[in-house]
Amino acid sequence: MRDVRMRGFSERVDVEEVEAFLDRHTRALSAEPVDLLACVGRVLAEDVRAEVDVPGFPRSAMDGYAVRGEDTFGASNYDPISLAIAGQALPGRPFRGRVESGGAVRIMTGAAVPEGADAVVMAEVCNERDGRVEVTAPVGPRQNVGVVGEDVSAGEWVLRSGRRLRPQDAGLLASIGVDRPRCVRRPRVQLVVTGDELLPAGSRPDSGHIVDSNSVVLQALVARDGGERRPFEILPDRVDRLRDALVSAAAVADVILVSGGSSVGQEDCAPQLVRELGSLDFHGISMRPSSPAGVGRIPRGEPRASEVHPSWVFLLPGNPVSCLCAYEFFAGPVVRSLGGRSRTWPHPRVRLPLARKISSAIGRTDYVRVAIEHGRVVPIATSGASILSSTVRAAGCVIVPRELEGMPEGSEVEVRLYDDVAEF
Amino acid sequence: MRDVRMRGFSERVDVEEVEAFLDRHTRALSAEPVDLLACVGRVLAEDVRAEVDVPGFPRSAMDGYAVRGEDTFGASNYDPISLAIAGQALPGRPFRGRVESGGAVRIMTGAAVPEGADAVVMAEVCNERDGRVEVTAPVGPRQNVGVVGEDVSAGEWVLRSGRRLRPQDAGLLASIGVDRPRCVRRPRVQLVVTGDELLPAGSRPDSGHIVDSNSVVLQALVARDGGERRPFEILPDRVDRLRDALVSAAAVADVILVSGGSSVGQEDCAPQLVRELGSLDFHGISMRPSSPAGVGRIPRGEPRASEVHPSWVFLLPGNPVSCLCAYEFFAGPVVRSLGGRSRTWPHPRVRLPLARKISSAIGRTDYVRVAIEHGRVVPIATSGASILSSTVRAAGCVIVPRELEGMPEGSEVEVRLYDDVAEF
Repeated sequence: MRDVRMRGFSERVDVEEVEAFLDRHTRALSAEPVDLLACVGRVLAEDVRAEVDVPGFPRSAMDGYAVRGEDTFGASNYDPISLAIAGQALPGRPFRGRVESGGAVRIMTGAAVPEGADAVVMAEVCNERDGRVEVTAPVGPRQNVGVVGEDVSAGEWVLRSGRRLRPQDAGLLASIGVDRPRCVRRPRVQLVVTGDELLPAGSRPDSGHIVDSNSVVLQALVARDGGERRPFEILPDRVDRLRDALVSAAAVADVILVSGGSSVGQEDCAPQLVRELGSLDFHGISMRPSSPAGVGRIPRGEPRASEVHPSWVFLLPGNPVSCLCAYEFFAGPVVRSLGGRSRTWPHPRVRLPLARKISSAIGRTDYVRVAIEHGRVVPIATSGASILSSTVRAAGCVIVPRELEGMPEGSEVEVRLYDDVAEF
Repeated sequence: MRDVRMRGFSERVDVEEVEAFLDRHTRALSAEPVDLLACVGRVLAEDVRAEVDVPGFPRSAMDGYAVRGEDTFGASNYDPISLAIAGQALPGRPFRGRVESGGAVRIMTGAAVPEGADAVVMAEVCNERDGRVEVTAPVGPRQNVGVVGEDVSAGEWVLRSGRRLRPQDAGLLASIGVDRPRCVRRPRVQLVVTGDELLPAGSRPDSGHIVDSNSVVLQALVARDGGERRPFEILPDRVDRLRDALVSAAAVADVILVSGGSSVGQEDCAPQLVRELGSLDFHGISMRPSSPAGVGRIPRGEPRASEVHPSWVFLLPGNPVSCLCAYEFFAGPVVRSLGGRSRTWPHPRVRLPLARKISSAIGRTDYVRVAIEHGRVVPIATSGASILSSTVRAAGCVIVPRELEGMPEGSEVEVRLYDDVAEF
């Protein structure tokens, strides 16, 4: 039997202090070229200037006839003007000749308007017969013609660094001939899960063992935040194994999430190891749940010039709600920020009145799971950090800041919703 | 040179009529088992009942000593009660014996509380020495002990069919021993892109050719809506190739998106082919842009009992904004709905006043790109359906319903935002 040393947390820091520290020490990772189809949702790492005009040729905006506009002046139903058809222009198959005065070229939407022509008269006001077209309405020069550079002009800055790319942004990049835009690299995130009591997800729990649910939740959150998940295995509660795992992780990962082993009990050697291998910047935070959470940094094994930052290590409590909460407060913002995204919580928010008061304590930040019933916010009775089902029943959470000792019934509070789409 | 037939749309239907038709004829696809790590964001296709208790054993919520609560009654700093330590209980490594009166077992958070004990006295009020522990504060029965089924009870319904799974839902499923929850199958989406003028994305445009940007935008939207994208190639404007592509697509895909070739010009054989191969339910819609859009259905090649629905075919205009708009109005809701999700547009919404009036026409639905400047909604000047850059400059869109002829300056309008996070 090993010797037991039980220590309390000597002092706890405020959530804001940890947040400010993370903010100060995190910046976006280096850039890498990304396939057009994979770039949506990624963050652009460079300003992009168009090197070409879009369209690169005068383009018909209608099905009809390419003409010299002045040839159609005065045309009407009663007095149609007849033009000789010299050929046709199809998208990708231009008419190679020139439209002379008195002539016309049949043209489809998207096709290049031939030389000589300056307008397209729409098919609806034309009658074609025997190689000639009768035009029954006039069309002015440039009418129904998309001019060169109408969408994008060569030399124009189309997208700026820091932009989180939308579907249409990727489309625009394609249209100006960009192949692989440079985006901020996705942070690599390594889970380190310890616990002799844990069975891998997918197992059936038995007496004395529970299934590791934290890794499932964490991996989904990492994916949400744009991190790149790495394979992991559950480690036994052994210092040597944990040390090896942390050293290996630091060599490859930008962020290490340690689940379990972050309290102050005898099995909890992770904080000590982080202190030995790098720095344990915080351990013990004035919050509920997640007060045993910790934050540290371990230098990279072989730093490259562009990646000199150490690996962030987040010590996440083993209790599932504490684990979720500590991820959201500390690890999530860092994962997003390393990937170039906003560190703000990604949850949609609603403001609604409280159906029952929330009690807290001055000096402590609380993460309160709430339901929404009849347009009112109902704190979920259980406060147990081990009750994952409470986060399943909840619609979202309310953060009680440390300067408040609670929130009175009827006051309007901000709910961070767990679901993307708010339908209240 | 082929013969030219130019027809106008004989009549156009209202957007709402198309939406109602799609609504009436679409339901969620069949279920399939999905890995826990892949199920987040998917839609559960069955009610899930827990077959086990979580925790399945009485669990210590503290680091401390498992005791019989009544043994500690009256303990204080001045009058500590001394108990004999019989062993220790660690997570996953339970104490196999029984705690008798006068005895205690050293215990860690998460470990099984041994038989005989009914409470855990926290380490902070204990002093251990020479195989005995002095307890300086009493602890009541059940205190600091998580009871069996505290999180989830065996027999409890934990998640209902139709739920879009959150990270914590997947965690809860793991904790009750579910391996592969049954979720609604993701719709398979086949792009069919035609156009002699098109170069594949990643190419550089040249005179007379443009780069296919629609497929890039569409694939990103399909991914957003949970569809499974299938490989595709750009087809030349040839009827036989398009027919073959539609027939092959209908055999495998739940949704076919045809980009290009959906107007009424000579190159546009897609509507006719859909009519021949199945039904062309709508073609020509009272909206701007996207009026040439069409909707049809092609029977599956080899229908299986569980997948008897035909393939939906959406004819999306070639102009990039029309293509985007037609996808959002018609294809997107079907993709989401087949996958079990809400058909509602997924855009976050804000209500803000209009800086300038929007003109429209009664009887026509308009999709207006807008910027947001100083808290006011500014319609983007260009209305060109070919100007993809307008959707890059825009913050979102405003839908002008067909019963309005416009929206006056100063009126409050709903903006559907292109970005997930609203920061105005």
